[in-house]
Amino acid sequence: MNEEKESKCCFSPFISPNPITTFNPVQIYPDIDETAFISQFSSVIGDVTIRENVYVAPNVSIRADEGTPFYIGSNTNLQDGVILHGILKKQIAAGGRKYSIYIGKEVSAAHGALIHGPCYIGNNVFIGFKSIVYNAIVGEGVFISYNAVVTNGVKVAPNRFVPPGANIDTQQKANALPRVPADSREFAEEVQKVNQEFPASYHLLFGENRCSCGLAFD
Amino acid sequence: MNEEKESKCCFSPFISPNPITTFNPVQIYPDIDETAFISQFSSVIGDVTIRENVYVAPNVSIRADEGTPFYIGSNTNLQDGVILHGILKKQIAAGGRKYSIYIGKEVSAAHGALIHGPCYIGNNVFIGFKSIVYNAIVGEGVFISYNAVVTNGVKVAPNRFVPPGANIDTQQKANALPRVPADSREFAEEVQKVNQEFPASYHLLFGENRCSCGLAFD
Amino acid sequence: MNEEKESKCCFSPFISPNPITTFNPVQIYPDIDETAFISQFSSVIGDVTIRENVYVAPNVSIRADEGTPFYIGSNTNLQDGVILHGILKKQIAAGGRKYSIYIGKEVSAAHGALIHGPCYIGNNVFIGFKSIVYNAIVGEGVFISYNAVVTNGVKVAPNRFVPPGANIDTQQKANALPRVPADSREFAEEVQKVNQEFPASYHLLFGENRCSCGLAFD
Repeated sequence: MNEEKESKCCFSPFISPNPITTFNPVQIYPDIDETAFISQFSSVIGDVTIRENVYVAPNVSIRADEGTPFYIGSNTNLQDGVILHGILKKQIAAGGRKYSIYIGKEVSAAHGALIHGPCYIGNNVFIGFKSIVYNAIVGEGVFISYNAVVTNGVKVAPNRFVPPGANIDTQQKANALPRVPADSREFAEEVQKVNQEFPASYHLLFGENRCSCGLAFD
Repeated sequence: MNEEKESKCCFSPFISPNPITTFNPVQIYPDIDETAFISQFSSVIGDVTIRENVYVAPNVSIRADEGTPFYIGSNTNLQDGVILHGILKKQIAAGGRKYSIYIGKEVSAAHGALIHGPCYIGNNVFIGFKSIVYNAIVGEGVFISYNAVVTNGVKVAPNRFVPPGANIDTQQKANALPRVPADSREFAEEVQKVNQEFPASYHLLFGENRCSCGLAFD
Repeated sequence: MNEEKESKCCFSPFISPNPITTFNPVQIYPDIDETAFISQFSSVIGDVTIRENVYVAPNVSIRADEGTPFYIGSNTNLQDGVILHGILKKQIAAGGRKYSIYIGKEVSAAHGALIHGPCYIGNNVFIGFKSIVYNAIVGEGVFISYNAVVTNGVKVAPNRFVPPGANIDTQQKANALPRVPADSREFAEEVQKVNQEFPASYHLLFGENRCSCGLAFD
């Protein structure tokens, strides 16, 4: 039994309640649907709800130890190096509750994206390589290109397109954004299709035992 | 005893001396104050001094295997994905010694910041999301906004403000920087307050045993 | 024997075949030369060839579970936080084969660089801090500065210099790039020299046993 515990922990993600602080005095455990998959070298800490079939790649940090809670809707994927963290006491409302970070369903957050609360990200949003979303409301179907920033309390209307490297830090800039072009929409849908296969297939790869037994190194 | 050793290593950070190379032929172990907290999936390698109550988030790499040594002052925090590394043989002076990287006390390095030696970062500096500080002297109280770069041997005077996305790569640009506005100063102080609670509270969360025993996964 | 397995896995990198999906129905193990070194908290997944004396720093993700295969030539180094991933079914040709990502020999990918397939990176290329190479052909000896992007199907001729923060997303922009200046060429050679020592020296540091036994924590 002890042996089993040890073999399980080897390449487990790190899942824990938040530490007790003056600002978060109650420990809350993550609530992770069993169909979701959290990869090795990734962390989920505190009051985080992760729904069905979410895929979390390696080296991701989901750290609800300051701003809290976080919600991640079904079929969403967070690629390698994505970071979720939130500022203390700043929240947004979604479905009658308050959140530090609310992410809808079928969202894709590409490699190296930073999602920092307070923020709301609607369904079917695409967040590009190394983009930053912080202190923002992002409507459903928005496409944020690589290296872009959406911040400073702006609200991006549904289905708008944020160009590569854009710094959307005023409502005026947000209002001037064009609609998502057809090829970007299609691209985001392709990314969803691929990533929705990963949770089940990675669970199979690991099997019952998350350790390295049987994994190749030559 | 063997069992204890194994149970301890499961979610330990990786702490080791530098590897022996022609340019660093002596192995030096990190000197980490016991009140500091280094998170899972983070590394500290080589001649690195980490002082009281430093908080190092997950997926941080502090790698003094090329440029060396590094110093990190008390109450400083390094957020998720921060990287510290240094170029060979390039050093700066601080307090009568030479360093590849010197970071003062009460510095905050936000998510994804890259601090690359040679560099000096004074007390109470704030380094924003995904910023780069490389080959620079940053005076105390400077506020570096997200996605900014400070490089090319520049010296930033105390209490200057580096705007979002700015590329400060000449002394002329550094000299033209405005002073830190009151709201940014306040923000940096808030971030310090929150992060100074983390080392003790994370030590309590882990307790004696850093393994996954008792951590939730459902 | 069981004990040995456990002690080995503690700070091992994660090496595994790709998971079985509809788009990659065959499991292929990475082929990693034994002189290469893959650091703790890094992953190599799927049909990835890693040649002699490659150095992979901590918190790197090499994930051939979508676009595939990847090739990494001898003496190449991937610094902390580098990510390799590829888009499904998009490939480039190199040496009579097709690849999602082909990286030649003596390439340096600096901290936080993102290399996303389809892409080809010739020998002796330098890729700067936090740069993005995606859907591009990069000729040998090219120097890509920090925060730059090379994308959108462009082909960069050998020995061209991409300035800091440049967004090379048209062939016209690629064609207008200047040649690599002598000091950047020299810098890239210095980086190669240093990193070519790491694989052997890190193998020695770990010895037979990759666990934390004997590593310092105080």
